Amino acid sequence: MALPVETFFLHSDAQGTLQAQIQQMVAQGILSGRFQRGEKLPSTRKLAIHLGVSRITVTIAYTELLANDYLTSRGRSGYFVSENAPVPPAFDPGPRGPDGVDWTRAIGQRFSGGDTPRKPPDWARYRFPFIYGQADPTLFDHANWRLSALQALGQRDFTSLTTDYYDQDDPQLVEFIARHTLPRRGINARPEQILITLGAQNALWLTAQVLLTQRRSAVLEDPSYHALRDILRQSRCHVTPVRVDRDGLPPTAIPPGTDVIFTTPSHQCPTTATMTMARRHALLDRARAMDALIVEDDYEFEMSFLKPPSPALKSLDADGRVIYVGSFSKSLFPGLRLGYLVGSEPFIREARALRASVLRHPPGHIQRTAAYFLSLGHYDAQIRRMGRAFHDRRRVMEQAIADTGLRIAGQGAYGGSSFWMRAPDHVDTDRLAERLRAKSVLIEPGRAFFDGEDRPKNYYRIAYSSIPSARIAEGVALIAEAVRSAV
Amino acid sequence: MALPVETFFLHSDAQGTLQAQIQQMVAQGILSGRFQRGEKLPSTRKLAIHLGVSRITVTIAYTELLANDYLTSRGRSGYFVSENAPVPPAFDPGPRGPDGVDWTRAIGQRFSGGDTPRKPPDWARYRFPFIYGQADPTLFDHANWRLSALQALGQRDFTSLTTDYYDQDDPQLVEFIARHTLPRRGINARPEQILITLGAQNALWLTAQVLLTQRRSAVLEDPSYHALRDILRQSRCHVTPVRVDRDGLPPTAIPPGTDVIFTTPSHQCPTTATMTMARRHALLDRARAMDALIVEDDYEFEMSFLKPPSPALKSLDADGRVIYVGSFSKSLFPGLRLGYLVGSEPFIREARALRASVLRHPPGHIQRTAAYFLSLGHYDAQIRRMGRAFHDRRRVMEQAIADTGLRIAGQGAYGGSSFWMRAPDHVDTDRLAERLRAKSVLIEPGRAFFDGEDRPKNYYRIAYSSIPSARIAEGVALIAEAVRSAV
Repeated sequence: MALPVETFFLHSDAQGTLQAQIQQMVAQGILSGRFQRGEKLPSTRKLAIHLGVSRITVTIAYTELLANDYLTSRGRSGYFVSENAPVPPAFDPGPRGPDGVDWTRAIGQRFSGGDTPRKPPDWARYRFPFIYGQADPTLFDHANWRLSALQALGQRDFTSLTTDYYDQDDPQLVEFIARHTLPRRGINARPEQILITLGAQNALWLTAQVLLTQRRSAVLEDPSYHALRDILRQSRCHVTPVRVDRDGLPPTAIPPGTDVIFTTPSHQCPTTATMTMARRHALLDRARAMDALIVEDDYEFEMSFLKPPSPALKSLDADGRVIYVGSFSKSLFPGLRLGYLVGSEPFIREARALRASVLRHPPGHIQRTAAYFLSLGHYDAQIRRMGRAFHDRRRVMEQAIADTGLRIAGQGAYGGSSFWMRAPDHVDTDRLAERLRAKSVLIEPGRAFFDGEDRPKNYYRIAYSSIPSARIAEGVALIAEAVRSAV
Repeated sequence: MALPVETFFLHSDAQGTLQAQIQQMVAQGILSGRFQRGEKLPSTRKLAIHLGVSRITVTIAYTELLANDYLTSRGRSGYFVSENAPVPPAFDPGPRGPDGVDWTRAIGQRFSGGDTPRKPPDWARYRFPFIYGQADPTLFDHANWRLSALQALGQRDFTSLTTDYYDQDDPQLVEFIARHTLPRRGINARPEQILITLGAQNALWLTAQVLLTQRRSAVLEDPSYHALRDILRQSRCHVTPVRVDRDGLPPTAIPPGTDVIFTTPSHQCPTTATMTMARRHALLDRARAMDALIVEDDYEFEMSFLKPPSPALKSLDADGRVIYVGSFSKSLFPGLRLGYLVGSEPFIREARALRASVLRHPPGHIQRTAAYFLSLGHYDAQIRRMGRAFHDRRRVMEQAIADTGLRIAGQGAYGGSSFWMRAPDHVDTDRLAERLRAKSVLIEPGRAFFDGEDRPKNYYRIAYSSIPSARIAEGVALIAEAVRSAV
């Protein structure tokens, strides 16, 4: 039987080349059992006319399907579904009644309902996206990332792509971090002291699991990264939020008996404060005195386009007390999911064993691609390009903020990618954000960063990492207007 | 100052093209501070002669570095380190004493020391690798994987590559699994009932965390996948190992009060037994009677080259009692780290929230690449190619085993990729494996699959997924010889 040409359609929203779409259409027809062994396909000429594409496009698609043995060609009689083509099993999914499971009882531990807010996935469609932590397509070095990925896909790297590393990592990436990335933060580490993670989030989670239990106490900056608060809540340890000031976390406010101190010395999240050198020494002294550990999330240090960054807190750590969290997801793109932990071997050993149990290892291909991108110098070039653009956008933003009379609460002396803003006390920025969204402006309400019952509701964050300079003034003016008219 | 040509070396073990190596050498020299702003590089001619490469190779490498602003070209005077080149900060890592931290006390939870054995990372160098679960480069469709990856790296897919999906997944991959993969296992599922995971390991881990606590009881097959045993131990639930027979897990042996039953009905791991249809119904009845959940690891169903696979246990599940674990890492390559969970929405919601906290989401690029590879039909073509090769190898293996008089304990009626073997009772297969390794033969000792104090020590697994047919007879003969001479 011949398959009627009318069963073929190109969907206007389909992804990929025309050739890939045709190939996909035929393969899925066969895999789903709609096209059966021995059935004749429309001729390339007929299908090309029907779909309105060139005949060579159809021919190439058919040729690909021949190579995979989905089709056979019988000379001039045309193309047929191959006798070796896969046949889908004819399983009839039985009727499904309503769930007979009482999920309230069946679920042993609940993880949903945390603080981490969901941001709009379609943020790029907004005209004024003062959104934080997404990749800007105009700044990303797509071409060289592609080349690095291609190189990592080559036959020579087959092993790094496909291998089950068990609990290990790509040695090339680990070596690059040890020899090039960390020395620039003042950190000396051997490969056994480094663990690759699925982004900083995964690094913080592993650390909390290894160090904390119900019987341990942690200090958390307040305000702080909301996802970290969710992580600590899940570890069930005792958490003391400590209010930060303009220099970040004040060591004197850390209560005795603290086991682990989580801090962001380079750029406090979200206030952007940088911890002074004196305070860093004081923090280390305090931790040593109470035998506590420090987890340093060295976040956004690359975006230091105003002043060179200070060395990491870890570089001052003389006795292995600091666990360092680094990430490439921020500076490259968050979808990369690549970060790392640096710490003493007994700690890294446990984090490695836990990671192996949870997910084995971050995919080898991604590790190797990053290793190439870094070692060919593209990473640093990209950082500098981003720094220049951010510098420019920041100047425009400062001017616009000054012009409109909005109030900055923290702006990062070294640079960074955002301003921490304070609206008048009566303004609820959750509602402000909602109203601005209707005007195609995205801001980030501040409440989710704070701890406790009585959270300040009048802070918000605006970033310049994904908005072009030309739109900043108009966007800031809209924010100012909304703040003024807020009741 | 000119940089002397003698500071440049090509390393014989370096990766990548010559051009990339030269580019890397210069970039790293600059990033590490050895080459400083304004310094003159050797001419392309001089460097080409020194390294023994063509001049055009050096020229292209220099041109790339120009584009990234590491170098500038001053017409005929040659190439110089750019005035904009990055300058590494001159941080002097302080002297590090011994760790001042008592890690025995500081570590709250210990994860190392589990059952999961480490396999030799250099397994491909062994002449007779009867190793299980690694990718065979001769069977993998590298070219089409590369094409799919390239397509997913394209500008059109920028968002899927770079975006922070928060707790979501690539909609294209989820849709393919819902519409094409699961129906072939007899399973109907909506996208909200599917969660993408970092391999089956991650799926099992998430499931155990959501369903189990110290107060819950789980049943585990004995023998079973060692990594699952480690996962359950970490959940601290009460675990009852239930000895499997030739049809897999016997439902009557499941003790009352069990909350969760972990099982591998398609191919019991490691005995390769397939659960009969009658037993599947009995298992579901038993679970329903005690209000227990079943976690089905539908492992290796694709490798059914002898008989078509049975539908998944999940397809018989009328009341949402079965949680289904699928994986692409096995059939494509383990380094891919891609699997999925299928279950009722309340369960998937919690697993999703936990996954978001632990790692957010599997990298978007990998999800999209797999979506293309699947939807273009390459996945099924690869499975069939592997099935044919495995079928052939299996015949050779059966013959060799029969010729040498080794004893098969389980071989999988549908196919699979391994034999479960039984040596005479006095043989310790840990030692056997060690002795065989010296003869370039890799087998997997069986002890780690068993539970409890008194584990059988005379079982072992031999796989044909990574060994060419031509080497099988000689390898099996070496195993037989070692078994005979074992004391």
